This record gives sequence, C-alpha cells and structure tokens, in this order.
Amino acid sequence: MKLPESTEWVLHATTALAQLDQGVTASAAQLAEHYGVPVAYLAKQLQALVRAGVLSGTTGPRGGFRLARPADQITLLQIVEAVDGGAPFYTCNEIRQSGRGASPPEQCRQACGLAVRMAAAEAAWRDSLRAVTVADVVASLPAGLPDRTRALLARPR
Amino acid sequence: MKLPESTEWVLHATTALAQLDQGVTASAAQLAEHYGVPVAYLAKQLQALVRAGVLSGTTGPRGGFRLARPADQITLLQIVEAVDGGAPFYTCNEIRQSGRGASPPEQCRQACGLAVRMAAAEAAWRDSLRAVTVADVVASLPAGLPDRTRALLARPR
Repeated sequence: MKLPESTEWVLHATTALAQLDQGVTASAAQLAEHYGVPVAYLAKQLQALVRAGVLSGTTGPRGGFRLARPADQITLLQIVEAVDGGAPFYTCNEIRQSGRGASPPEQCRQACGLAVRMAAAEAAWRDSLRAVTVADVVASLPAGLPDRTRALLARPR
Repeated sequence: MKLPESTEWVLHATTALAQLDQGVTASAAQLAEHYGVPVAYLAKQLQALVRAGVLSGTTGPRGGFRLARPADQITLLQIVEAVDGGAPFYTCNEIRQSGRGASPPEQCRQACGLAVRMAAAEAAWRDSLRAVTVADVVASLPAGLPDRTRALLARPR
C-alpha cells in the first residue's frame, strides 16, 4: 500500500505557496524547478489540488497557483486525498456471506467486525492528517527558510 | 492507496482457524470453499501468514493450517502486514534538498516536518490494528457462529 510518489511533491508545493506574500502566485514550472521534479506531472497534480479547493490557479503567461484559502484551513489530509482519492484502503466484499460457510442474513445485521476494525484504523490515519494544517508545517520550518522560498519564487510583477 | 483484495480473505481465514478446537487444522481448499474464494491465491497468502509466524502449516493429504500462537497474541496488524508488507505508505525522497530551492544541509539536520507528520499518521493506523487481536474479533462474533464454523471445517481425523 503506497501513496503516489507525487504526494511528497504536492505537500511541499502547497507548503511553498503558503510562504508567499498575499496575492503572489507561482507557476507549475517554477515549483517544478524549485524542487527538481517533472513539470508535466506536477502540473497535473496541482490541477487536482485546484479541483479539491486547496489551490486556485490562473492560466496564461502570468498565471500561477496560490492557496485557495488560508493555510490554517488546509489540512494535510485534503492535500493527500486530492492526489490519492479518498477511497478506503480496505474493501469489505462481505465474504462472510459467501461460500459454503456463508452466514445467514440474520447473523449479518451488524457490520462485519473485521471491517469495523479496519475502518477504525483508517479513521485514525485520516484523523491524524486532518489535525495538521499547512500553517502548522510552515510554523515548524527552519528559521530563514520562508524568506528564502519567497525570494526564490518571487516573480516579476 | 489500496490493500490487496486478499486482505479480507486472510483476516477471515485466520479468524476461522481461531475458532477450531486445539490441534484441528483446515486446508487451503477447505478455507477457500468456506468463503468462496480462489484456492490457489488463498493458498499463496496462507503461506505468507506462515512466513510471518501467524499460522503454521503442514503439507500433504492430511496437511492444513492452524494458528502458530494463541489468538490473543495475533494482531490484525500482523495479518495485514503479512500480505501487504510493512513498507511505509509515504516515501520521503528529501525533495527539500533537491532542485533550485534545495535547502542547505545545515537546515536539514532535523527530519522533514512533512515526513514526520505522514509517519505519525501511519503510526496511528498501525497502532489501531496492533490493538486488536484475533481473539477480540472471535469474541465479538454472533452467538452460534463459532460452533457452525467448527462443524463446517471439521475434518475426519
């Protein structure tokens, strides 16, 4: 079970955009160069973040991306789910009701205990990522890094 | 991010084996028929559970599988990791140290804050599955089900 490799890219790209001054944008090409990652694939994932309401993006030569809302209202879960989808890790196909050992319907009125435990573990993962915002991540960056990010990504206006 | 479909099969198969009387085994064919799942693929996954120390298996016409230790010492995490591996969901390739925006090494002495948060979420998932044993699952089965499982899976001795 693996998250897409681009999960790291979009987490960092969103964190970088959160360090820019209000109204400043960065293009997919700038962000790709900043992190040394492939621009076409990063651009596709940034569009997924736009669809998820994490970023807003404008196209054209002066276009670029910025946060769609304040950094303290964007959770790591929103970013991860934008690129990975929000589908459950575990699929219950109700095999307790299949085969020679199929349980009768009256014994299956409650959800399968295994599915319930697997869902609880996923909820713990999601809750953990929902509890961290991009603002929290920016606040824990090494001193001086946000100034450097701003300077490197600043565009001629 | 998806667990293999066979995760459900091995969780149920291990739970079924936990309902058998001491010393009784069930073959891959019996378990596959019990749940209506493909025997070849189930057998492969049961072997993975043997390698993980969850089951012990004997081969031959009277061979079969049983728990390798008491059901209260087998966690759902052990079963899930036996079929999915224990690799992290999130891979940190240290892109903070790549590209035009590469942070200098002295700003990277601490682990990347994003990687730390992603690892914490995975730990929450693992902790949740580690807290549930097969004995817990058996204890929450509908009344009468263990007797039925035992009767259906009993083999001529």
